[in-house]
Amino acid sequence: MEGISRMNNRIRHKLLQDKIVTADEAATWITDGMLVGMSGFTRAGDAKIVPLALVEKAKTENFKVDVYTGASLGPEVDQYMAQAGIIRKRAPYQGDPVMRNLINQGEILYTDAHVSHNAELIRTGIVGPIDVAIIEAVAITEDGMIIPTTSVGNSPVIAQHAKEIIIELNTAQPAELEGIHDIYMPGVQGKREPIPMTNAGDRIGTSGIPVDVSKIRGIVLSEMKDAPSLIVPPDEETAQIADHLLTFFRQEIEAGRLTKELAPLQSGVGSVANAVLNGFLDSEFENLEVYSEVLQDAVFELIDAGKVKVASGTSITLSEAYGKEVYGNLKKYQSQLVLRPQEISNHPEIIRRLGLISINTALEVDIYGNVNSTHVTGSKMMNGIGGSGDFARNARLGIFVTKSYAKGGDISSIVPMVSHHDHTEHDVDVIVTEQGIADLRGLAPKERVELIIENCAHPDYKEQLRDYYNRAVEATNNAHTPHLLAEALSWHVKLTETKSMK
Amino acid sequence: MEGISRMNNRIRHKLLQDKIVTADEAATWITDGMLVGMSGFTRAGDAKIVPLALVEKAKTENFKVDVYTGASLGPEVDQYMAQAGIIRKRAPYQGDPVMRNLINQGEILYTDAHVSHNAELIRTGIVGPIDVAIIEAVAITEDGMIIPTTSVGNSPVIAQHAKEIIIELNTAQPAELEGIHDIYMPGVQGKREPIPMTNAGDRIGTSGIPVDVSKIRGIVLSEMKDAPSLIVPPDEETAQIADHLLTFFRQEIEAGRLTKELAPLQSGVGSVANAVLNGFLDSEFENLEVYSEVLQDAVFELIDAGKVKVASGTSITLSEAYGKEVYGNLKKYQSQLVLRPQEISNHPEIIRRLGLISINTALEVDIYGNVNSTHVTGSKMMNGIGGSGDFARNARLGIFVTKSYAKGGDISSIVPMVSHHDHTEHDVDVIVTEQGIADLRGLAPKERVELIIENCAHPDYKEQLRDYYNRAVEATNNAHTPHLLAEALSWHVKLTETKSMK
Repeated sequence: MEGISRMNNRIRHKLLQDKIVTADEAATWITDGMLVGMSGFTRAGDAKIVPLALVEKAKTENFKVDVYTGASLGPEVDQYMAQAGIIRKRAPYQGDPVMRNLINQGEILYTDAHVSHNAELIRTGIVGPIDVAIIEAVAITEDGMIIPTTSVGNSPVIAQHAKEIIIELNTAQPAELEGIHDIYMPGVQGKREPIPMTNAGDRIGTSGIPVDVSKIRGIVLSEMKDAPSLIVPPDEETAQIADHLLTFFRQEIEAGRLTKELAPLQSGVGSVANAVLNGFLDSEFENLEVYSEVLQDAVFELIDAGKVKVASGTSITLSEAYGKEVYGNLKKYQSQLVLRPQEISNHPEIIRRLGLISINTALEVDIYGNVNSTHVTGSKMMNGIGGSGDFARNARLGIFVTKSYAKGGDISSIVPMVSHHDHTEHDVDVIVTEQGIADLRGLAPKERVELIIENCAHPDYKEQLRDYYNRAVEATNNAHTPHLLAEALSWHVKLTETKSMK
Repeated sequence: MEGISRMNNRIRHKLLQDKIVTADEAATWITDGMLVGMSGFTRAGDAKIVPLALVEKAKTENFKVDVYTGASLGPEVDQYMAQAGIIRKRAPYQGDPVMRNLINQGEILYTDAHVSHNAELIRTGIVGPIDVAIIEAVAITEDGMIIPTTSVGNSPVIAQHAKEIIIELNTAQPAELEGIHDIYMPGVQGKREPIPMTNAGDRIGTSGIPVDVSKIRGIVLSEMKDAPSLIVPPDEETAQIADHLLTFFRQEIEAGRLTKELAPLQSGVGSVANAVLNGFLDSEFENLEVYSEVLQDAVFELIDAGKVKVASGTSITLSEAYGKEVYGNLKKYQSQLVLRPQEISNHPEIIRRLGLISINTALEVDIYGNVNSTHVTGSKMMNGIGGSGDFARNARLGIFVTKSYAKGGDISSIVPMVSHHDHTEHDVDVIVTEQGIADLRGLAPKERVELIIENCAHPDYKEQLRDYYNRAVEATNNAHTPHLLAEALSWHVKLTETKSMK
């Protein structure tokens, strides 16, 4: 644990310096039936040691709480608290295999919501009242502002609407994070001003979260690092996806629809989206801007390579290796980074104004361009919709990427009808697989079918897809969106029964 | 036809006064393969007499054009031009039975798009180049601005991006329309400022559409009135839907989430949505604001009753009777009306900022809250998504209304899985039928099922729905969103085969 003078540097508000308590004591304040709001977004900047104390407390006490966060948290909540059986309901995003299984066994209720919508629900009290907020901080300022760590997420709105706040003051997070955040709160609907941002790197708010310090009940000291991200490196097929996309961008430049600097880039969570951004490394593109949600390894690689000049997001989620590099040299990146509340990083107003290029991962896509991002064979939740809907709906280019097959070829990612709809045909501009690219903008359903099957489907499934479509055209007398409803989901049924769509 | 001095009052730009041509001559400028942009939104302010001349020309000449408009047009285009076989592709909305049938027979291609997205597609040239624009106007100003008539729609962006423009100067449209429009163009993405609007009634633009007058190739004089709207009067069940909604609003006020003035109201196109607004007439609510897309009869009834103080939209579509009343007394309404481009009336930036209450009609809803607004049994296009997605996604309250049954009870509007997805579970806050209301905000899928079946389904179908859900829970071991994929669309299959879902 650090010395007192260094700690005073972190807790700069005089009234708070005697509020330090143990995690065990803070855990006693959390009781059965409470709604607990927590900091954290994709395993970054999340509450960690009070959750572990709650897991300990669960050994001798029966209780369950609802947990509302920014997005997915690390193992302390989404694995250990879940396993301990003390979470009744979870929202608005998760990505841990343990949490996922419990959701799909009906043990934990889960509400999956657009990343930009959560704050409105909290502000109006639809989600609430929040009994306790647990917010990880790197410091508390003289005037009582909470300085978040590696994510902002929903922490501002959670802190402001919670009845009381527990701070996890984390000295393992570098002090240089202070100054990276930009906290802008849009206020009550109907009394709002326009959000005064016209560039990805604009700073429009405060450097921390202003709170009523009398609500801060306790400060728990922590030295636990964020859990590293679990992304896997690019492979041949993700590189092909990136290549197709770069070719497409070059064509857009030629058509006068993009400039050499492209437009602010958004890239979704996970390995495929990270690999696609990676593709820019060896390209001619430079002076790029990132206006995204999660800043993953590839963003920092692009900054290091001098390709990206500014990156805005709501969290930084890095692999173990890259985390050491970035957090050991944070000063270097400080002027190029902005972390915002998730309702601002994902706000439709900004996404439409800046005209983002949005790249997100699809689980499966259908022949008309509808996208499933969340459910395996219609019923089982994977992670959640996250910000993909915020971005795809309002971006200049709503791009979805996926490999054309999964499970060694037993699954086709292109299907007659997706088994769950997260993004409708109206919100999907471009689909890319390792096979090729389908630019669907302005096209009628029948025009889309042709492109999606020919350019994106795996060769093993093309004939089967064409056959479905041709018979659907026949059976519906060539209706607007030909489907055979008795057969539309049969590929998924077959998969469940025989382990293959073939 | 009017006298010369009165006509000079309408064509006030000196260079244009000798541009008057016949509709037949203008029709000769439109040739095979062209993309024609036309004014008009839900049968209001649409091009009429050049389309009729094109129908005439088709008797002796083979040609086909693509037609891009604001939304649905009157019979001159969506009936007569369609019947004449001269439309290859239609976008972005339609609602005429003739057009609909041709789309569903594969005779006309149709692209159905969010109302707020069209302008971006035209601006970037994805839709384009527009060879000719045909714009109905009530006047052309001294400085060459086109003053639209009863709708603005996509006319500004179409006029600015078309190679040449034909004006239908319509003297049957009241001159007092001038001053009602507010034309604001957001400019190129990435170089935009915030849209400077914070109240439903704010005027932020010009009174007409600024164009390069040298592009105006001809002016055709017209005296054809808009086709009246075809809405049917409220009935017992739509009155019940309105009652449920008013009760819900009262509860929201009690919970402190709404004030007595509610929030700016948006109400979708058609009879059910009109009837719901009608319900406010006998209520205690007043000082209401409307920020909508189409202003139908009910909006004017509410203005007349002193309930609505300001109404903003992109078009005015009235029944024959109400049209006489309103257009005969337009002075009376002038200060309370604003007509905007559809990308502004439906802009996510404004919808989220003002926090609209959005009320749209569903064709069918499923047990998890997904909504189908467009397709009959999955394949056949009805009208289109229109603005429902713009509003539902970003509104304070995304409400969908529908009667719980159709075809005398042979169809349940609540089904296991919708046969086409326009609005996903993430975008649907509240569902209302004559049976009752389901407030889905913040709920997990399994919590939603209970409310939707119990409160909204018709009693004849409740048991059948519960049975599906219970068996899905069993078969999926209680997964997140239990579905029986082999059966999910079987109600629609049965309907097609036996004419009943029972």
